[in-house]
Amino acid sequence: MRAAVFNGPHAIEIAERPDPRIQAPTDAIVRVTLGCVCGSDLWYYRGDSPHAQGPIGHEFIGVVEDIGKEVHGIARGDLVVAPFTYCDGTCPNCLAGVTSQCVSGGSFGNRGIDGGQGEAVRVPLAGSTLVPVPGRGHSEEILRSLTALSDVMCTGHHAAVSGGVKPGGVVAVVGDGAVGLCATIASRRLGAGRIIVLSRNKKRQELARAFGATDILEARGEAAVQAVKDMTKGIGVDSSLECVGTGESLKTAMNIARPGSVVAAIGAPHGIDFPVMETVVYRNIGLRGGVAPARAYIPELLPDVLEGRIKPGMVFDFETKLDGIVEAYRAMDERRAIKSLLRIGAA
Amino acid sequence: MRAAVFNGPHAIEIAERPDPRIQAPTDAIVRVTLGCVCGSDLWYYRGDSPHAQGPIGHEFIGVVEDIGKEVHGIARGDLVVAPFTYCDGTCPNCLAGVTSQCVSGGSFGNRGIDGGQGEAVRVPLAGSTLVPVPGRGHSEEILRSLTALSDVMCTGHHAAVSGGVKPGGVVAVVGDGAVGLCATIASRRLGAGRIIVLSRNKKRQELARAFGATDILEARGEAAVQAVKDMTKGIGVDSSLECVGTGESLKTAMNIARPGSVVAAIGAPHGIDFPVMETVVYRNIGLRGGVAPARAYIPELLPDVLEGRIKPGMVFDFETKLDGIVEAYRAMDERRAIKSLLRIGAA
Repeated sequence: MRAAVFNGPHAIEIAERPDPRIQAPTDAIVRVTLGCVCGSDLWYYRGDSPHAQGPIGHEFIGVVEDIGKEVHGIARGDLVVAPFTYCDGTCPNCLAGVTSQCVSGGSFGNRGIDGGQGEAVRVPLAGSTLVPVPGRGHSEEILRSLTALSDVMCTGHHAAVSGGVKPGGVVAVVGDGAVGLCATIASRRLGAGRIIVLSRNKKRQELARAFGATDILEARGEAAVQAVKDMTKGIGVDSSLECVGTGESLKTAMNIARPGSVVAAIGAPHGIDFPVMETVVYRNIGLRGGVAPARAYIPELLPDVLEGRIKPGMVFDFETKLDGIVEAYRAMDERRAIKSLLRIGAA
Repeated sequence: MRAAVFNGPHAIEIAERPDPRIQAPTDAIVRVTLGCVCGSDLWYYRGDSPHAQGPIGHEFIGVVEDIGKEVHGIARGDLVVAPFTYCDGTCPNCLAGVTSQCVSGGSFGNRGIDGGQGEAVRVPLAGSTLVPVPGRGHSEEILRSLTALSDVMCTGHHAAVSGGVKPGGVVAVVGDGAVGLCATIASRRLGAGRIIVLSRNKKRQELARAFGATDILEARGEAAVQAVKDMTKGIGVDSSLECVGTGESLKTAMNIARPGSVVAAIGAPHGIDFPVMETVVYRNIGLRGGVAPARAYIPELLPDVLEGRIKPGMVFDFETKLDGIVEAYRAMDERRAIKSLLRIGAA
């Protein structure tokens, strides 16, 4: 089969790799329909984070081609959503809903596990990982949104859940990337009364509004903090959702949060250079978030996607076939694209 | 009146200060009965944190001597517990239960506000700050526990609440100081099934056991992390309560926490030198805590003190009169005392 492989920073190519086969009785083989590029893929693409050489990509939907003898709940021919981490569903972390920290789990597209940026994937622990999609002949729009359920929409939902978004609450979303935009969808879905999205990009602002943003804030840094304070009688927002991961964005997110609230910490941290603990302690600002337990969230979000109540697939504003993988990364790296879709196989 | 004043690191003395008088109609004057020394007082005593020159001490109980015209809910002659921060009770932070971040509030014993380590205190916003104690002629034991309600017991309770202690849950308390010991009381009070207290000090171990600790762990650092993992099937504790504030203790507290849990961040941070955000994000470990909203907690804890169900006053293992203030600090600084009580006036 053909699959994208990482050879080092800025060195991604399509290579021939062995067709995946069942290795353990809990495996399934999925023929990938749609994959995509994650904002977090850019960290290793740019050389800012380490990544093993080999297959890449952790978000995909596809059709089950083969299953091991101990795989239950899915069948050959099923359309499935793959959460970006696989999990056994029975360990203490899975039972606590933190499937992203499964003691037997791992991530697709790293350390030799097939990636979603390829034609097929051997899925470990398939019965407890893959989520079958009911129905047939889904529209292109629905398929794109199902692909978003693999990671970005669940991650946005995790932001909203971690930040304690409640009906009527005032939310700020720091970051207008695909995760921030999905956090906007999730905040609206959970009933937020006001959603302030920090963005300077016209296209992303429009999408944020379509997703439920009530206010767009172009200011950054101290000016953004002051603007949010002015909008909230000096107190700060009920739920501040950090969806970038830089020191500057985390600082902004913590400084616009009201005392006693919990900042959703979703962005992969890079260059955090301000006194986080002093803010936690002296301003009573909590932090919670991390790697989204996508497998635990998909069943809740799936009906909303299938019935068209949420359309996270709208974050894909660039698409290509697998051969265009380099351009898919470049478009995001250069911020020409919010998120790149990879059209790989037939649904 | 006579009161302790801070002249600089290691330079605390008893000085003559003006008798406090009503300045605003919301003020009250409280004649201090019992005061004490807080673990956080040691930071400025040692020169590790800045502190304004002048009055010190933020924990006290006393008798109301005078009240301004707009003070409601307390009367002359009332025995009152003073939470360590004063608050208006009506701002958005107070209404949200975060009285420690009152927009009109502040701390006793700093920036010119009288301290609890003195004979009398002008209490701003007295009606919404002071908590009157029902009944008369309370025992010495009760009075000591009431003094603990001013800060340390509420702070221990805040640790347990912030760390999400639940009935049957497994708790670890990092720190065997007065706050850690009160966090042990609070964890038991909230129904924890197992309470592991990290301590190497025999006297503190005994007190921890008396307060409800089921396990004492003498190991530190990596050995402590491994020991807790061994006690929890490799997963970590449900609630990890950080009650010290150093980088080493925070690292231990975060590393023994189970994924998805929230570490109570209570200790004033000093020398945090490990990657906090990487743990928050990659291990799904939250952080929450900060300055305890004592005023919000006292009404809930007071009946338990008055009816003898909790005895946080047992943390006072050294006592002196106001004249002994230097020794009160020294005994704690040299870890000869867990917490020093100051016997200042008549109840």
